[in-house]
Order: sequence, then structure tokens, then C-alpha cells
Amino acid sequence: MNTSPLTLNRLSLYLRCLRSISGDGIGTISSQQLADQFHLSAAQIRKDLAQFGEFGIRGVGYRIEPLADRLTELLGLDSFHPLVIVGMGNLGSALAASAGFNTGCFKVVAGLDNDAGKIGKRIGDIEVQDASGLARVVGETEAEIGILTVPSEVAQENYDALADAGVKAILNFAPTVLELRPEVRTKSVDLLIDLEELGYFLGDS
Amino acid sequence: MNTSPLTLNRLSLYLRCLRSISGDGIGTISSQQLADQFHLSAAQIRKDLAQFGEFGIRGVGYRIEPLADRLTELLGLDSFHPLVIVGMGNLGSALAASAGFNTGCFKVVAGLDNDAGKIGKRIGDIEVQDASGLARVVGETEAEIGILTVPSEVAQENYDALADAGVKAILNFAPTVLELRPEVRTKSVDLLIDLEELGYFLGDS
Repeated sequence: MNTSPLTLNRLSLYLRCLRSISGDGIGTISSQQLADQFHLSAAQIRKDLAQFGEFGIRGVGYRIEPLADRLTELLGLDSFHPLVIVGMGNLGSALAASAGFNTGCFKVVAGLDNDAGKIGKRIGDIEVQDASGLARVVGETEAEIGILTVPSEVAQENYDALADAGVKAILNFAPTVLELRPEVRTKSVDLLIDLEELGYFLGDS
Repeated sequence: MNTSPLTLNRLSLYLRCLRSISGDGIGTISSQQLADQFHLSAAQIRKDLAQFGEFGIRGVGYRIEPLADRLTELLGLDSFHPLVIVGMGNLGSALAASAGFNTGCFKVVAGLDNDAGKIGKRIGDIEVQDASGLARVVGETEAEIGILTVPSEVAQENYDALADAGVKAILNFAPTVLELRPEVRTKSVDLLIDLEELGYFLGDS
């Protein structure tokens, strides 16, 4: 199955909705109920979940628990994914201390920086380590995902270092275009581009 | 003109590329040269920039400065957009101190929290203010964009408070589905969903 990033992002959302109601003692929910409760589109839900048809009961809805379990498995949330952060400035430190990055199957296991003033500092559950030890740290922690929170000028070299160290995926926050490694799944989060998207719409008023 | 968010995000990227070479003394660049230099798709560039055809010279390429100026104007980057941050925890503080959120036309002018331990604290160029004064602060600073970095449980009420206070756009970081106000352009950045997207691909190996 080849699922697009946008569909995957919606599946994440549905899973979160299903989990939030799974303790309520109800066994099934229809696409319309899901849509109403969580401000989503019922037609989009039905389309996205069509491939999981076996969890639906015609005229009743989706069986909440088994569908949630299947989505959990699909998104790889039934196994543990250690994260390593490269660049322990403000954003890197915020992510290291963030519940979202230390919840369930994702956990920050290491944070590195090349600034002597930061090395040894305790943030969240980790102690900042020297960036020169990246390959060793990734090997020891078996980190699967690298979080790149370094300045743009050094983003490519640190991206390459993470790839060389063997992480399988990288979440990049540096606002620059990287030359990607085909073997490393890369997702870029560019907050300035998000702001500029909003900027476009401000011009309308 | 009605431009989709994904296209807008690519225009932001092109603008950044154009600005990075605009001091190099060259007047024009072809879509192929842009693509090669910044690891982009030449066909996609041509398609996205087709609406700005007047900045292209057949067989030569785009005139860098005028095209960059036009994109700047389109994205609303030729006017000043004050930002107000609601929720000065780790992420809110990181954004308040971030160059990306205090660069060019975007600037954090206020940060608010309801935690007495945070109020009065100096972060970046601002001093954390009491969240109860949100409406007054938005009025005084003429903040156009609200940044929502509060816990999920209180995201909706703070979203509504920002909308009531009169911001025109909101960038939401709370990992929850909000009931949106049609008059407020809203963009959600959900870092856990980004991680889950990567999680899907980790399962393949």
C-alpha cells in the first residue's frame, strides 16, 4: 500500500479522535458522528478509511477499538522509535522537553550540539552531548529518527552526518532546501513558510 | 487569484532561492538552473511561475529582482505583521526567541501566559504578560497573527479568545482539532503528526 503523506496525516488525526473516545464505552462510531464531533469531513473520512473496510459495519459505523489498533500498527506506533536531536538551541531544547516528542512510541534519547556552553546541560530527560560523537551516539541509542534543529548554514552537513550515522528518517526544521538522501525519509517543517502562507491571506483584508 | 497553500509554500521557497542569489550579480536564471541549484523540479517551477510570465524572457529565464519583488508582494512580505504568542512554555519561548519569527516582516510583539511564574519573565525582545489581558494587548500591539502554543485541553478557548481579540490569522501548535472561525485564517502545525508520518515509513525497513 502506498499512502500519501496528506492521507497519513489525516489517518493520524482519525486515530487521535478514535483514541479520545475509545474509553467512552461505545463500540462503534459512524463517519458522520466522527465528522460532527471533530469538525472533519464525513465524505473524506469514508474515502480515507475505505481501505480499512473490514472495520466497518454497514449502517452502524466503524468498530472503534479494532480500527484504532489497525491505524496504530499502520503508522508504526506499536513499536518504539528513539529520536536524536542535533542542535540544542531554543527549538531543539523545547522539543527535547516536549511531551509530544516523549510520548508513547517516540522518545528523545539524545541531544547533541557543538557549543561547549551547551554540552553537559540537562534538558528534559537527556544531557546534551558533543556533536562530534554523533555516529557513536546513534549507534549506542539505536536512534531511528534524527531531528535537525541547527542553523541553515550547517543544515546540509548535519543532515549528511545523521544519514551517515544510520538514522532512517529525519525531521528537518532548518529553513533551507536540502539535498536529500534517497534512503532517508525526510520531512521538513518550515515555520517561516507557514507564516508566509498566512501572510498571503492577510493581504486580502 | 486563488492560490493553494501548497503552491504558496513553494512560492516561499522560490523567493528564498531567488533572494539567496540576487546579490550574485546575475540578472536572470532559468527554471532548470534554479532546479539544479536548489534541488527542485524545473517543470514544477515553470508551472508555479506561469502566472508570473511577465518576469520571464524566452530562452533566457526569469528576471531575478523583479520576480522576487512580485513574490514578496504576493506573500504580503512587504508589510509588517506583528505576532502575539499565547502560551509561553518551552515552544512559545523558543519561537519568541527565534530569528525566523523575528525576521523581516514578522516580529513577535507580545507573549502571554496564565502562569504567574512566567509572567514578567523576559524572553527575546518581550516580557511575558498575563493572558487575561489578551484583548487589550492585541489592540495595543495591532497584532495580526496569533501563535497558539498552549496545551490541547485549553487550545479551543484560547483560539476563540484570539479570534475575539481580532487577530486575522492563527498558527496553531496544539495537537488537537479546533472548531475554526471562518473569518480567521488558521494553519495548524502538528509535530506529532509529522513524527507519525515518518513512523509509517520506518515500518518498511
